[in-house]
Amino acid sequence: MSHNTFGHLFRVTTWGESHGPAIGAVIDGCPAGIPLSEADLQPWLDLRRPGTSRHVTPRQEPDQVRILSGTFSDDRTGGPVTTGTPISLMIENQDARSKDYGDIRDKWRPGHADYTYDMKYGVRDYRGGGRSSARETASRVAAGGVARKVLGDGISIRAALVQVGARQIDRARWDWDEVSNNPFFCPDAATAELWAADMDALRTEGSSTGAIVEVVVSGLPAGWGAPVYAKLDSEMAAAMMTINAVKGVEIGAGFASAAMRGEQAADEMRMGEDGPVFLSNHNGGVLGGISTGQDLVVRFAVKPTSSIRIERRTLDRDFDETVIETRGRHDPCVGIRAVPVGEAMAAIVLADQKLRHAGQSAF
Amino acid sequence: MSHNTFGHLFRVTTWGESHGPAIGAVIDGCPAGIPLSEADLQPWLDLRRPGTSRHVTPRQEPDQVRILSGTFSDDRTGGPVTTGTPISLMIENQDARSKDYGDIRDKWRPGHADYTYDMKYGVRDYRGGGRSSARETASRVAAGGVARKVLGDGISIRAALVQVGARQIDRARWDWDEVSNNPFFCPDAATAELWAADMDALRTEGSSTGAIVEVVVSGLPAGWGAPVYAKLDSEMAAAMMTINAVKGVEIGAGFASAAMRGEQAADEMRMGEDGPVFLSNHNGGVLGGISTGQDLVVRFAVKPTSSIRIERRTLDRDFDETVIETRGRHDPCVGIRAVPVGEAMAAIVLADQKLRHAGQSAF
Amino acid sequence: MSHNTFGHLFRVTTWGESHGPAIGAVIDGCPAGIPLSEADLQPWLDLRRPGTSRHVTPRQEPDQVRILSGTFSDDRTGGPVTTGTPISLMIENQDARSKDYGDIRDKWRPGHADYTYDMKYGVRDYRGGGRSSARETASRVAAGGVARKVLGDGISIRAALVQVGARQIDRARWDWDEVSNNPFFCPDAATAELWAADMDALRTEGSSTGAIVEVVVSGLPAGWGAPVYAKLDSEMAAAMMTINAVKGVEIGAGFASAAMRGEQAADEMRMGEDGPVFLSNHNGGVLGGISTGQDLVVRFAVKPTSSIRIERRTLDRDFDETVIETRGRHDPCVGIRAVPVGEAMAAIVLADQKLRHAGQSAF
Amino acid sequence: MSHNTFGHLFRVTTWGESHGPAIGAVIDGCPAGIPLSEADLQPWLDLRRPGTSRHVTPRQEPDQVRILSGTFSDDRTGGPVTTGTPISLMIENQDARSKDYGDIRDKWRPGHADYTYDMKYGVRDYRGGGRSSARETASRVAAGGVARKVLGDGISIRAALVQVGARQIDRARWDWDEVSNNPFFCPDAATAELWAADMDALRTEGSSTGAIVEVVVSGLPAGWGAPVYAKLDSEMAAAMMTINAVKGVEIGAGFASAAMRGEQAADEMRMGEDGPVFLSNHNGGVLGGISTGQDLVVRFAVKPTSSIRIERRTLDRDFDETVIETRGRHDPCVGIRAVPVGEAMAAIVLADQKLRHAGQSAF
Repeated sequence: MSHNTFGHLFRVTTWGESHGPAIGAVIDGCPAGIPLSEADLQPWLDLRRPGTSRHVTPRQEPDQVRILSGTFSDDRTGGPVTTGTPISLMIENQDARSKDYGDIRDKWRPGHADYTYDMKYGVRDYRGGGRSSARETASRVAAGGVARKVLGDGISIRAALVQVGARQIDRARWDWDEVSNNPFFCPDAATAELWAADMDALRTEGSSTGAIVEVVVSGLPAGWGAPVYAKLDSEMAAAMMTINAVKGVEIGAGFASAAMRGEQAADEMRMGEDGPVFLSNHNGGVLGGISTGQDLVVRFAVKPTSSIRIERRTLDRDFDETVIETRGRHDPCVGIRAVPVGEAMAAIVLADQKLRHAGQSAF
Repeated sequence: MSHNTFGHLFRVTTWGESHGPAIGAVIDGCPAGIPLSEADLQPWLDLRRPGTSRHVTPRQEPDQVRILSGTFSDDRTGGPVTTGTPISLMIENQDARSKDYGDIRDKWRPGHADYTYDMKYGVRDYRGGGRSSARETASRVAAGGVARKVLGDGISIRAALVQVGARQIDRARWDWDEVSNNPFFCPDAATAELWAADMDALRTEGSSTGAIVEVVVSGLPAGWGAPVYAKLDSEMAAAMMTINAVKGVEIGAGFASAAMRGEQAADEMRMGEDGPVFLSNHNGGVLGGISTGQDLVVRFAVKPTSSIRIERRTLDRDFDETVIETRGRHDPCVGIRAVPVGEAMAAIVLADQKLRHAGQSAF
Repeated sequence: MSHNTFGHLFRVTTWGESHGPAIGAVIDGCPAGIPLSEADLQPWLDLRRPGTSRHVTPRQEPDQVRILSGTFSDDRTGGPVTTGTPISLMIENQDARSKDYGDIRDKWRPGHADYTYDMKYGVRDYRGGGRSSARETASRVAAGGVARKVLGDGISIRAALVQVGARQIDRARWDWDEVSNNPFFCPDAATAELWAADMDALRTEGSSTGAIVEVVVSGLPAGWGAPVYAKLDSEMAAAMMTINAVKGVEIGAGFASAAMRGEQAADEMRMGEDGPVFLSNHNGGVLGGISTGQDLVVRFAVKPTSSIRIERRTLDRDFDETVIETRGRHDPCVGIRAVPVGEAMAAIVLADQKLRHAGQSAF
Repeated sequence: MSHNTFGHLFRVTTWGESHGPAIGAVIDGCPAGIPLSEADLQPWLDLRRPGTSRHVTPRQEPDQVRILSGTFSDDRTGGPVTTGTPISLMIENQDARSKDYGDIRDKWRPGHADYTYDMKYGVRDYRGGGRSSARETASRVAAGGVARKVLGDGISIRAALVQVGARQIDRARWDWDEVSNNPFFCPDAATAELWAADMDALRTEGSSTGAIVEVVVSGLPAGWGAPVYAKLDSEMAAAMMTINAVKGVEIGAGFASAAMRGEQAADEMRMGEDGPVFLSNHNGGVLGGISTGQDLVVRFAVKPTSSIRIERRTLDRDFDETVIETRGRHDPCVGIRAVPVGEAMAAIVLADQKLRHAGQSAF
């Protein structure tokens, strides 16, 4: 993880600012011969796209992804396939409307990266948050689409929103099919309705709220990952913590493990028809940094958007005290659109681990 | 983070198994001219050392660290200083008593890395857990001592145990001075006594318990860290998740952020006498992956030790169903000795970020 | 150096194929606050541009570089400056004329990467050589322009062609000012004229020739670089050997060192007015992998272009024996346009070493 | 290649100074299940060991290597095998006799790293050259032994000395069997005798000489390596240039390519009984950075030892002008013992490329 690059063998480098001409990603190290076209990536981008419901930012971005390199089609390949060379993806910014950036140009939004960018770099592209905007995650979602192709159909990566504000889903009602039926990626239809009401109230008040996303990966073989500093769960944690506004990550039982006793936390084993089975999954599919073959379960907490219409005390760039309220097109719950981003990051981590595992086993 | 190496400019590579002849670390990239001797490192190792109270494993290990390279003393340096070349640290294993490993040789402990190592590598040094033993963390603590020297005295890194089992400390009673007064690194003397009773009961029952560690770093300048995949909090999360048995990491308000509203979560700013001050620290000292100058606050959850004396169902290496109970010298709460390890990992992350920040600002 | 990325702190990732829609580079880790616009980069690209004399390929490419991210201009910066975020550079391919690629589609050009790409990847973008085309080096030249800005005006990086075919320059006539006066980047006007005649003959015959490029860097401080595997000369060698068709690299006296005696090869030292001076520079400005402060001197050999009009024996993709002669727009001496590429790679290595040196010295 | 680490998946980190207590290497990423004991490594070290003839340094070092971690033997493995965890190798320094280092402590040997280390680090372990001593290469040779095991028996890596001073071997007399019959690793018995006389004269005069080493790898499959910055030949060049005193590297025809014409340099292809055959090997087994399946041929030039008994002008650490002549136990031709080091570095590069190729092809 160097600067803006993620991964070792399957490597994703993203670039671009919220209101620049374009954003994009270069995917380096993708194996050759994988069928890949823009149509494979667009559906994932459409899930993350702004402007799809009243609960997310109304910014209008078609988020059309272009593949500029790394695929080729000839008489032998029967359609475009990856060539093993870098895949350059570009998404043009459309709705970067020239507007008055006055407030966020000169004042630091509390809870936002405005202040720290200025402290680090001494200069900051304030237009729409520049590089620190969640818009950057569109590049990740596109790259995640490529990662899914590397993983193949046997591995499914799904995510859902399991908490908005203080309200959690009822896990007894978990239904993956519901996730696409509501604007929250919520697996529990009844809770989704309550969230809609919560969000309408929040929006009226000009406030925002946090959320928790859960990512579940099925179909993983046992043996991916590695000790000690390349643990699969460590890389998952790193990946999720790079998503804007994420403040916590846990695997399996996570923080609840602290209150458990040893006989409770250890997932017992029996033999099933197709090999070992575990009688529980408190470890979330990872032991010693290596996959067990169970579902990989990762949860992450997203803090409330810091761009709100409620007045907050802050400083301006001259270190004078002032107040700010942020108008404009912001997500009142950035956790919603983080759901496809979490899936994408999981895919990227796993595609890299798949290749590394193959490399490390090459004897 | 490649395999067993952590860091980019300040790089720590650890090696060694629990019951091999020795364990160690190579620290590469340490700046030259820093006074460093074994006496600077030993105190940190003594904090993590086993056998110091009835609440940790009775294994007897002096954990004497030797510096095999990378320092030099001549008439101009006035005592040993770092030379800019790799610092090789070695700790000999003393109490690796030859004993009957029968059970853990042939059976997979539920909740332990035994199974996944066998699935990945097809071979496993089962003696005391081999590479997956928490013994590896002694190397990290030694390396953390070097990292602290790189950071200098202006930055303090302290950690404490804030929860054991279901019992949390009372934060109103937090007293850093108490941390060294009880065998739990507990900042709340009253809770430490309750934990002692809890642990005595657990030990009698042959069970184990989880815990939560909190690391607090003071004295950081604003501006360390970087977007996007090199975020300071992402690296902290990765670092803590590489510690044995850790299942969750959070920064600042962490998972509690999910239930907050935007006006609550955003840390407002005012001017103080020495520069900007924040009216709260829900973000734990990091915004947009870059330090704010506030205290950096990281918490991580440690699951209960999986080596317990209570019988659990499992499989043997021939995939036959069986049961296991682990006798031997294990920590009933591995979270206790994880406290100095958490400090060490924080120091290693920050030493690396300090050097990278200097490099990235070199214009 | 991972796949298509070069550098550690100053990192250059290139992408794109010869006849795809565009090529480009992402530069990650560039310090903030450096004035940078497209006008700073274009002159370097113009030097490498095809179609500028009868001695290079007549392909017409304006090679207009666009900066898509990583710079910003506001009232405080007084013109675009780098922001510390990734700089995405893109050059659109214009003259990728749709033509019959028949021969190079189905047959492997002897001496070209056609065969090895097919062996590695099983698929190959044969249009103009795809990723293995020297066209990729335009991205490097653009990135090199950014690297020069990081290095600042005190460090000059110049290169010249010192041998074409068997004919070497006369070093007694070396004049840097001549380099821009002839189509060969030749510092010796008289030899340049002989080369012109040589090249005209070669072109008539449909053949090609090799060459040697010399890069000289002045103004380096002593102390850049590092032992053992990050030696400055090792990185220079790696960098030059990544340029298409390069088969050898040497530093200072290079291969001639083998025939020297110790008292001859060692560069003696005396004190000058501004510090230590060396009485010779057989070591090319590097000792023990670290710069001495003398001129850094790197030479590399470029083999003759393998795309020639003379019939050669080869195989086709079905492993049947055949012959090939390559028509089309090829450089008869690819070494000529390698001159600005060598400068660019030297700049990239040094910009990275500058940042790493600053990081490594940060105590 | 970061600091003192070489490789991506198969990673070698070396540590240690010439006159410290020990030197060593940590090999991380070695696949599991490979039979490995100290007896597999010692023969390679014995080839590089000092004191074996009158033509190399008389320093007496048994160079006994110990494996401190990463292998394990149980009833199923039938002898020690690698476990996939870091392999820590250590070689104790025996003949680091306490002596008067006066001259090299206070004066910079011309042509040596003394000056540049002082400029970079401000402190230097002058005892025997410290980290910059060729003694460090013993660690590489040990690591190279592990790399050979990863490559397996099908790939042979051999090297020979082909030039000492101005005297080259007669390639018509090349006989690999001769290499072990003379103290020069010379494949031409007649030339070896002439070198012996040359060296005796040099030694009498207190001078030293350069040399050229040629490494030949047979049995490589086609397809290893990668564009653009991870080219196999680029990594070979980087690896050889990290060896002490190396000033040039070339692949195949190397610098002689510059004088060739295209039809000469391109290696034509025909079909043989076992697949494609090449009618020449001017490209040294690499095209476009990827192996062709032919012999990989790498040559590197080693400059004369700078520690000579002939007086040279230099400066002392106070920048005062002085002279130095180096007495003590030095190699008059460090190129001789560089032969096994060149083999080791080739093995390390290839083991890493083997694993990366497997990883990159994992779809």
